[in-house]
This record gives sequence, C-alpha cells and structure tokens, in this order.
Amino acid sequence: MIVETISWLGSAPSGRVKLIDQTLLPVEEVYLERDDYRDIAGDIRRLAVRGAPAIGVAGALGVVLAMQEHAAARPNVFRARLAEVCGELAGTRPTAVNLCWAIDRVKRVVDSLPEETSAQRMLLSLESEAVAIMEQDRRLCRSIGEHGASLLPVGGRVLTHCNAGALATAGIGTALAVIYTAHEQGRKPSVWVDETRPLLQGARLTTWELMRAGIPATLICDNMAASIMAAGKVDIVVTGADRIAANGDTANKIGTYGVACLAARHGVPFYVAAPFSTFDLELSDGSRIPIEQRDSAEITAPLGVRFAPEGVDVFNPAFDVTPAELIAGIITDKGVLKPPLADSIRTHLAD
Amino acid sequence: MIVETISWLGSAPSGRVKLIDQTLLPVEEVYLERDDYRDIAGDIRRLAVRGAPAIGVAGALGVVLAMQEHAAARPNVFRARLAEVCGELAGTRPTAVNLCWAIDRVKRVVDSLPEETSAQRMLLSLESEAVAIMEQDRRLCRSIGEHGASLLPVGGRVLTHCNAGALATAGIGTALAVIYTAHEQGRKPSVWVDETRPLLQGARLTTWELMRAGIPATLICDNMAASIMAAGKVDIVVTGADRIAANGDTANKIGTYGVACLAARHGVPFYVAAPFSTFDLELSDGSRIPIEQRDSAEITAPLGVRFAPEGVDVFNPAFDVTPAELIAGIITDKGVLKPPLADSIRTHLAD
Repeated sequence: MIVETISWLGSAPSGRVKLIDQTLLPVEEVYLERDDYRDIAGDIRRLAVRGAPAIGVAGALGVVLAMQEHAAARPNVFRARLAEVCGELAGTRPTAVNLCWAIDRVKRVVDSLPEETSAQRMLLSLESEAVAIMEQDRRLCRSIGEHGASLLPVGGRVLTHCNAGALATAGIGTALAVIYTAHEQGRKPSVWVDETRPLLQGARLTTWELMRAGIPATLICDNMAASIMAAGKVDIVVTGADRIAANGDTANKIGTYGVACLAARHGVPFYVAAPFSTFDLELSDGSRIPIEQRDSAEITAPLGVRFAPEGVDVFNPAFDVTPAELIAGIITDKGVLKPPLADSIRTHLAD
Repeated sequence: MIVETISWLGSAPSGRVKLIDQTLLPVEEVYLERDDYRDIAGDIRRLAVRGAPAIGVAGALGVVLAMQEHAAARPNVFRARLAEVCGELAGTRPTAVNLCWAIDRVKRVVDSLPEETSAQRMLLSLESEAVAIMEQDRRLCRSIGEHGASLLPVGGRVLTHCNAGALATAGIGTALAVIYTAHEQGRKPSVWVDETRPLLQGARLTTWELMRAGIPATLICDNMAASIMAAGKVDIVVTGADRIAANGDTANKIGTYGVACLAARHGVPFYVAAPFSTFDLELSDGSRIPIEQRDSAEITAPLGVRFAPEGVDVFNPAFDVTPAELIAGIITDKGVLKPPLADSIRTHLAD
C-alpha cells in the first residue's frame, strides 16, 4: 500500500487534516488528526510534513482549519482574520515556494468573491479550493507516473536519491510515482536507494514507503552508487527536482549531480521527474539557482550524535545543479521532455 | 603536531606499548600504556588501533609484551609459548594481512636462532625485530610523503577519502603523509575530507588528525565531492590503498572509485599513496580482488542510532576497485609510478 501522506476528513466547518508524522518515521507510523491550524503550522515547522507539494497542501488545508472557527463571523472580520492566518502559515517555512503559492491560491478565491459574501460561503470556497489543490497534486503525480513508467524495462533496477515519493506529495510522488506505476503495471521494478546524507531522507523515508508498497528496495550509502553501476546493476536513475531552469539545468538534493556524472560514465540513463510547476523559466540556466548552505550540525551530529571534532570546518550545501546535458529526459505531468531540453521545455510550456 | 599512534616505551623485559585509543576519537584523546599482551589483543579486536600498518606494528609489539613474562623460562618452554601467543594475536583480526605478516616476521627471527639460545636472548631479538618493523613503517611513510609532496601545487586543495593518515600507521600515514610533508615544506595545502560512510573514518579521524597538525580541513559528505569539483575547488585527489593489482587496479575504501570517476570527469588528477607492500602481484587485475561485505547495521544504525526501517535490505561492500586508467600515479616509498602503471609497477619491483 502506498502511504497517504495528507488528506482532508469530513467537511467544513468541522473538517480535519489527517497527516503522517514524518519525524517519527521509519520507527513509528503515527497519523495525526488536526482541527487547529496552529498544530498544522507547528507540523510544517518541525518537518512532520515535508516535500514542497505536501507542504503546499498542508498550508492550504491549514487555512481552511483556521477559518472554520470564524464560520459565523461578519464578512469583514472573516476577511481580516484570513489575511492574518495566511501570513502566519506562509511564515512557517519562508523559503518554500509551494507553500506561499498554495496559500495565495486559496486566499485569492475569497478575494474574488463579492464583498457581501457570507463567512460560511467564503469558508466553503476556501475548502473547495484547498481540496482542489490536493486533488490536482494527486493527478499530477499520477500523470508523471504514467508518462514515466514505460521508461523502465521489465525487471528494471532503478537508482533514486533522496525522497521524491508519496511522503513529499499528497499523491504518489514524482520520481517514485514512476516506480509505483511501473509496479502496478507488472513491470517488477526494484530500487537502489541512496541514503542521502546529510539528512538521510533515502534511508529514513524512501526505503520505508517502498517497503510498505511491497517494492523491493536496497539501501546503499551514497558513495556505493559508482560500484553498483560499474557492476552493471543499475538500468536507470530517476530523481526528483527542486527547480528546473529554462535550459533544463536541474537543482535537486545535494548528491544528485554526482549520481548524474556517474550515470553518464556508466551509460545509465539519468531521468528527472517533476511537475511543470517545478520549472522556473525566469532562470536561463542552472548557474542562476541560489544554493542554500545549511547548518554544519547536520553533518557533524546527525540525529544528535556528534562524531566529528568540535569546531571542524564544514561545507553543507543543500542542493546541487545537474547540467541539462547529463539528463536523458524530464518526466513531467505533460509528458517526457527529451533533449535538447531547452527546446522541449519551450515547446511544452507553449501548449 | 602529527599524532603518534603507536610507540614502544622502555625496553624488554619491561617494555610497554603506548597507543591512542581510536574508539574514543574525536571526542577524547586518550593514550593507553599496555604491559599485558591480552590488552593489545583486545585493542586490536575492538578497533582501538586500526589501519593495516598500525595493526601490524601492534601485533609485533604484542608478541614482545607476551614473551616478557617468559624471559627466565627454559628455551623450549619459551618457544612453545611463543607459538601459542603468535596464533592468538594473529587471530584477533583474521583478514588483516599486515597483522599475520608482522607477527610471522618477529617469530621467524627466533626460529632462525640456534636451539640453545636463552629466553632472554630470544626476547631481545623479538624486541629488536618488532621495533625494526615499527621504524621501517615510519620510514616508508616519510618516503611516500617526500615523493608525493611536490605533486601538490602551492596552496593546493586536496580531496581525500577515508583515513590513510598517521592514525593508520606508526608514522605519518600514506595519503596524509603527502599532505603533512607538503605542509612542512611550506606549500600550504588545504584538505577536503570526505566523511566516508558508513564508518565515517574521514569525519572522525582524518579531520581530527589534520586539525591537530594545524592543516586547514573542511569536512563534506561523500556526495558533495562532485559539486566542489564542478566549482573548480579541488586541485588533486590523494587516497590510500588496501591492495593494488599488477596492472595498477586499486582496491580501497568504498567510495574511492566514485571519487576517481568524478575526478576524471572534472580534470582533477587522482593519485593513490601506498607502500610497496600494498602491491599484490599475484593478482593480474582488480577483478580478482575479493570484496568483503559487511554488516548492514553499519549503514542502518551508525553509532548505535537506528534510522532505517527494521528489516530493510542493505548492500554494504567495504571496498571498491578503481581501474588503473583513472589513476594519474601511485605514490610509493620508492617513487611516483606513472601510467602506464602495469609497466611502472613491473620496472620498480624489479629494482
């Protein structure tokens, strides 16, 4: 069974958000039911929910939860409170583009309603837009899966990095959607899972969700990928993406670029799976993508256990950029873009 | 100051072995003084001393410690006890070739003495041979450093993997000998240290010994090497070796091969540093080198903290093989061997 990361139970004004607490994975599988938006804000902040699409859905549903308390308010009071709540929720992870986008999208629905619209009516509009965002995310994941599955040979051995799975979306993921769909189609994929230092999303999350779905998965340290490629044990690499420039250069979790270099050397096709919302056409190429540097303790003391010397210098970029020429294709909800990627991206986005 | 991993204090029949307890690094710097060979056996077994050359020296000195208790024994009793002790110490890490080699070397000195030789005289022979092994190891390290240092440009930024340092030898290491010597020569090297999953020898040991020696070191996760090479921030890679075949194919800590692939792609010269004892000319090429598979808990629960799902499949090879064509040169105690390596190895070994 593929995990359902986030869902909406009941309906406004007494709906609830159900989500899996990812901070407890893979040791415990605990689902939270939230009827207070402050709890959702906390869940986003403490990474109980993570992955850009999933955070966006959580934020949008959080807005609905918050406004349920004001279903009987005067319209102007409702609108004032809505603005506050949106700002509060958007601030939980300031750099998450999807979060702002989703919150803004639900808010704009209310902004477009006539001034005299009742609070109850506004609340229902918020709810249907938030649910639409969630359902759209599920459809995008499905489409990515369907477009990508046939790239996997029968019995294909896929290598993936980080977690671009169901746990990062409201649906079946992006990179993992390809694998789940191939599995459903009887293609019998198996997966090499890079543990993905420093935060170990592969070891903690990707292995867990694949095992739960009954797909054979083998965990490796990131530095073992080269050996298994040299041994001819990898047929295809599929990873997610955080941001894709107009020329196809792709920012993703640190380590992705190294995997792409190794895939090129060993003749293994390297694919990226991402919805169209991941493309940032303002950026002509990958050199324009800002790379966040993160806290050294992620490297020196993962899970709170220190194993590097006190005061050691650390370099900890969160992402790297894979140049378009190493990418065999980008699996999107609209189809698989093939090289030359700059042309394919331009053509598809014009559709 | 470069750490002194193992040394011999005093002299037989009351000598002592001094060694740093590597299980406590980098959190605590504790030196043990051992006068009982059973403690040395335990130290080898629990990895308080590690690294092939250092283990060999510890084993040889352990034999001396054991036989000090029998300095007044009858010659035949001494010899019988020596055989037992050698077997016991050699069994502490059965796959460590250097350990058997060093123990055998001290034992053979006694085997070659006339039958009537006194226990006291045999003990002194054991001691001088064990000390000779230790001093030879120190000289080999120095020679490797001297041959390799000039390969580093002034201000050169070196990337290394695992720990091929003073902590792995009785001297200043192999790969790190090159860096230490360049530092002494005023070449101002700085070092990128791969943390080296799963056992984190880079994070725990290499950073510690470089910091102690006053050499700038920056810790990275293994999957970050590609990014820093792409950014033009690595001038040379130097690693150690566990075994080198006749054609130059080199087995070393898992992850080394991936670094070599990345170095080739980015035009960074990749060097191996190792004494001549590391060459195994019985092996025509790297495909003959057996690769040990290790316990999955090294990956799923490093330092005892579990973060991967219970029952997950794991692939955990301890080593990988870097083909000769990716190696710019092998820095040995006899000089730097350049490609074609098969020819250079043959020529040098004939000397």
